[in-house]
Amino acid sequence: MIFRRSKVVVSTYQAVSGAGKEGIDELQEEAQAYLNGEEMHPHILPSKSLPKHYPIAFNLIPQIDKFMENDYTKEEMKMVNETHKILHDDSIAVTPTTVRVPVFRSHAESIMVETEDELDINAVRKAIDAFPGAQMQDNPAEMEYPMPLYTAEKYDVYVGRLRRDLYNPKAINFWVSGDQIRKGAALNALQIAEYMIANDMIK
Amino acid sequence: MIFRRSKVVVSTYQAVSGAGKEGIDELQEEAQAYLNGEEMHPHILPSKSLPKHYPIAFNLIPQIDKFMENDYTKEEMKMVNETHKILHDDSIAVTPTTVRVPVFRSHAESIMVETEDELDINAVRKAIDAFPGAQMQDNPAEMEYPMPLYTAEKYDVYVGRLRRDLYNPKAINFWVSGDQIRKGAALNALQIAEYMIANDMIK
Repeated sequence: MIFRRSKVVVSTYQAVSGAGKEGIDELQEEAQAYLNGEEMHPHILPSKSLPKHYPIAFNLIPQIDKFMENDYTKEEMKMVNETHKILHDDSIAVTPTTVRVPVFRSHAESIMVETEDELDINAVRKAIDAFPGAQMQDNPAEMEYPMPLYTAEKYDVYVGRLRRDLYNPKAINFWVSGDQIRKGAALNALQIAEYMIANDMIK
Repeated sequence: MIFRRSKVVVSTYQAVSGAGKEGIDELQEEAQAYLNGEEMHPHILPSKSLPKHYPIAFNLIPQIDKFMENDYTKEEMKMVNETHKILHDDSIAVTPTTVRVPVFRSHAESIMVETEDELDINAVRKAIDAFPGAQMQDNPAEMEYPMPLYTAEKYDVYVGRLRRDLYNPKAINFWVSGDQIRKGAALNALQIAEYMIANDMIK
């Protein structure tokens, strides 16, 4: 098990489409109101069922779904639990922070993965490209990396900014973007990236 | 030295005001064009001096400033170097990912800090509140946390979502937002938060 006792630190940049058509309409209405110099009237985000609502246009909301007793949100605990479930390994230490951003479609995530054994970064690249439904989009010299405006409505998950950690030889860092509505579950992007890393790249 | 051999994993959510008035104008023009169903004409971001430009409206750009040879951006290396300089400690392992987001003013950051000794989280809270220019804004039960729409044009740096790591007793996670134009250097928010943590909270 490559991920045994590994650590994952993930910060999300989640699109309003995760809150459905109402979330999309809300961002659109608020953005136009803001540009017109008018008041915004949030009533959906961060979540319809919560007692307070905040504008998402030109803002960031560091809450998705309700808070649990441990001060993590339900969405954050879902990232932990789904990672364990999909990789069949409860020993993976996930540190999640989930944030709603003013993007219509396509979630993104900034991810650090530390494994017990050092990863071969070129093998990671190849494994991701070989995995159906995922592809590398990673060429710093040409300023190529995944961005939600371009990954929206596509069926693949795109991985970029793949690089060794500056200090920890057993850690890699990367950036993922994919249209979670097309791809299925909201956290599919991370999960697929993680699964791919589990193939073929231990030195 | 509390931070000796500590680890900091930080993902940023940086406002367009970091690119000056031109960045602000670009987001405004692009957002209006997008809402009108018109084409966007990016010419400033991610950086005026770079050969390609991408829209920032309703998008995320995981590049700020040019890429260095190690595949980190100059902005990311600045985070490493300035943290070392301000805390007078080159042993701090900083893992930076810097991302431009469609927010007009006020940067935000998702931060994990792992220290050699376990931190007392209540002492951290008190130290932040006692520090001039910083304050806690952290009440999950009341859905209170820093958001850039509200921290814009304020002089303080706001810290919220402070919580113990789920797996690592020596790590804490938090979220910071502050108007970096008001507060000075672009990474001041992180640096001040880090400095504050260095006061009064080792068990």
